[in-house]
Amino acid sequence: MGLTIDNINQNVVAAKYAVRGELAVKSEEYRAKLSKGDAKDLPFDQVISANIGNPQQLDQKPITFIRQVLSLLENPLLLEKEDVLVQSLGYQTDVIERARKLLKAAGSVGAYSASTGVPAIKESIAEFLERRDGFPADPSKIYLSAGASSGVNTLLNVICAGPKTGILVPIPQYPLYTATLAVLNATCVPYLLDEHRHWGTNLETIRKSYDEAKANGTDVRAIVIINPGNPTGASLPEEDVRAVLEFANKENLVVMADEVYQTNVFLGEFHSFKRMLRLLQQEHPDGSYDSLQLASLHSVSKGMVGECGHRGGYFELCGFDPEVEAQIYKFVSIMLCAPVIGQCLVELMVNPPRKGDPSYELYEKEYNGIYNGLRQRAAALHNAFDEMEGVECDEPQGSMYLFPTINLPAKAAEAAKAEGRTADEFYCMRLLEATGICVVPGSGFGQKENTLHFRTTFLAPGTEWVGSIVKFHKEFMDKYR
Amino acid sequence: MGLTIDNINQNVVAAKYAVRGELAVKSEEYRAKLSKGDAKDLPFDQVISANIGNPQQLDQKPITFIRQVLSLLENPLLLEKEDVLVQSLGYQTDVIERARKLLKAAGSVGAYSASTGVPAIKESIAEFLERRDGFPADPSKIYLSAGASSGVNTLLNVICAGPKTGILVPIPQYPLYTATLAVLNATCVPYLLDEHRHWGTNLETIRKSYDEAKANGTDVRAIVIINPGNPTGASLPEEDVRAVLEFANKENLVVMADEVYQTNVFLGEFHSFKRMLRLLQQEHPDGSYDSLQLASLHSVSKGMVGECGHRGGYFELCGFDPEVEAQIYKFVSIMLCAPVIGQCLVELMVNPPRKGDPSYELYEKEYNGIYNGLRQRAAALHNAFDEMEGVECDEPQGSMYLFPTINLPAKAAEAAKAEGRTADEFYCMRLLEATGICVVPGSGFGQKENTLHFRTTFLAPGTEWVGSIVKFHKEFMDKYR
Repeated sequence: MGLTIDNINQNVVAAKYAVRGELAVKSEEYRAKLSKGDAKDLPFDQVISANIGNPQQLDQKPITFIRQVLSLLENPLLLEKEDVLVQSLGYQTDVIERARKLLKAAGSVGAYSASTGVPAIKESIAEFLERRDGFPADPSKIYLSAGASSGVNTLLNVICAGPKTGILVPIPQYPLYTATLAVLNATCVPYLLDEHRHWGTNLETIRKSYDEAKANGTDVRAIVIINPGNPTGASLPEEDVRAVLEFANKENLVVMADEVYQTNVFLGEFHSFKRMLRLLQQEHPDGSYDSLQLASLHSVSKGMVGECGHRGGYFELCGFDPEVEAQIYKFVSIMLCAPVIGQCLVELMVNPPRKGDPSYELYEKEYNGIYNGLRQRAAALHNAFDEMEGVECDEPQGSMYLFPTINLPAKAAEAAKAEGRTADEFYCMRLLEATGICVVPGSGFGQKENTLHFRTTFLAPGTEWVGSIVKFHKEFMDKYR
Repeated sequence: MGLTIDNINQNVVAAKYAVRGELAVKSEEYRAKLSKGDAKDLPFDQVISANIGNPQQLDQKPITFIRQVLSLLENPLLLEKEDVLVQSLGYQTDVIERARKLLKAAGSVGAYSASTGVPAIKESIAEFLERRDGFPADPSKIYLSAGASSGVNTLLNVICAGPKTGILVPIPQYPLYTATLAVLNATCVPYLLDEHRHWGTNLETIRKSYDEAKANGTDVRAIVIINPGNPTGASLPEEDVRAVLEFANKENLVVMADEVYQTNVFLGEFHSFKRMLRLLQQEHPDGSYDSLQLASLHSVSKGMVGECGHRGGYFELCGFDPEVEAQIYKFVSIMLCAPVIGQCLVELMVNPPRKGDPSYELYEKEYNGIYNGLRQRAAALHNAFDEMEGVECDEPQGSMYLFPTINLPAKAAEAAKAEGRTADEFYCMRLLEATGICVVPGSGFGQKENTLHFRTTFLAPGTEWVGSIVKFHKEFMDKYR
């Protein structure tokens, strides 16, 4: 007998990944129908993919400086026509200089780089981290990756030694974590985020999950934090970051800080785990924080850069055992290297034009335009949710998402059950069918028992689609009241 | 206690990947020393990385047509200045048309694509397969991947259900296979290639390995074939391809055909597994070959394209159960999508300019120039090996490698043992130290007991480095005679 669902890797079968699940597939079918003009029966004329943080699929334009440099990296022969670039195509001299510098560092972007990335790019990332955190960073501890997802995959592959290994994962969470743990047959130790404290971390809850897991014989090795939050949109206050590190230090846990939304912050400011780790180390000259292990991840996919199709990212390790680092090196070597053009994009993200550089003005204008646009869209969507019956939603803090609670009538829950769906799945499916708007039900991320949510990006332009959600919601509530 | 080599994933610890192992690391240290001018003590003035098939790190120039299109995909604003592109930068009109077409298909290359790839690119690959094989291909069975390595990783993750799952792997092999099987804790069932038949497959040997594994309780699920061969450089004759498929059909094995070197063929021609599968299905109208499962992989990394830094590739499935395909879909979804610029590069590789297109002449000239250069270098290296004492090497057939047998004196074996190395590792380390040339010992790929080999690419330009190998070898033999 050949391969069947019953004899293949059951860990893969067990993995769940709702972000690109049934709803997403159905929305793509609608999109295909619409593009073929074969959609007379559909009550909408466009599909809005609010299920994935995919800025450039919607309205976000790439940043000119970045794409100009990339075009030169792809075709270095253009550098032989500097006058044409400058005079006829509007390329600034700093674009040309940067391209030359990156080409010198990487050789051809068509060549494999060293397994962990182009050395000069790792140095530039280290300089960025030093500017960001006020503490030096070591380029040799930086690993370029194909987006942050690939970095998470590497770290979990190395950390997870079998079903007894437990990883503390926030609930709700981005399902990359639970899916990867399922594939690795390791144990997810869920801890609930505190919806009543703006989806912050609650040390009591974390400790309770940790203690229960230990009591069940699980060897808890790491804690995952997503800050700013996905799907929650939370931006953690400094004291939450500190408390998590203190707890991790006490229990010898690796901290995996998923900080891909670090520039998508609308309230307060971003507090990096790396900076807080160094502060704690300063505060404890006895060395009691010196062996705390932190892996922090970043990506070109989000923020104002929004270049997810390029699959660029990196992670930085602090406090890891050199023998463990050697295994991480070997693991990434097997896949050879991260895409080199994506590596260059990381460099452009962490080292943008500065005041006085010829490209600065346009860069700043584009960057701020994207940032303000996201903030305005988040506010508009939030206002709409505020007016919807039974919907509760925190003020937008960060990332690209809102994650409202929806209180649905009992009749809706019954109708969902009859269809073999959870009530939030049922709601999101009806929303898609009625409006063409694709969001992800809270059950795809995990949620506290007896609560329902959905996650929507606020990337789509205009206000019309927000109006359709409001209208749909009212009709849905009326129908199932 | 935090993470240590003893408590992390022991499957990762067990994995071996020599291509970027100790020798490669040491060669990079030499390179760094040389670039800092700090190498008075080194007996060479450059490092030659003949350990990795990395064409553009050495002499191979990117193909102009490909890079021109990519530059426009990265900066679509250039398309607004078509006159400048054509008149001042020498871009042909087909370059511009192709860029527009790909942009229409992918949207922005900075956006995630569908999980399995941009639909229009999958259609173009299907058309290529039809032209290549003379049989139609189904775009929905094509999965874009980040290089072929990522495709292999996906397939093995889905197929391998635990330690009892066995995968037939050729020896010698590209260590991606054994390393991934180690990480997945599945069983590698090695079968020896036949050095005396130009490293072809030998059905008797395969059957013997298969029977032994079955007798030991291993559930053998798949057979890996690398054609043209890595590290062997073999190009399989049609009858070998047929025999493997007949065997796999009889035993219900998935055939994983790693065909990344399909254009690197110097003797005879490339015979694709897909075409032979369709021929066998035609020959057997009783349907006895209809459920044979084939996954064939290709990549932009090798061939005359040589764009490995872009991490582009794809695999095509034939005969897979739809439920299993759904799991493959989910697995690739977790990592979101292959790099979109790499996907576009796949399209450019499989659909190059044709006779009559404005870019055709230059494309053809560059393509043939690279092909002939590789063939000449292979021949020069082969001639050198022919004259070296105790070295035996087949005529170059395909891929980017020669894999000579080396017969070393007993004294060399003793000296190696004293250093805790195998004799081939010892030889390769001395070669690196003496000449700056980095090759990979045969033990990194597996080799028949009591034989020694090394793998070298023939990508490096010039003949000087070949001369250094000859000189080193003579001195080595004299020293240990």
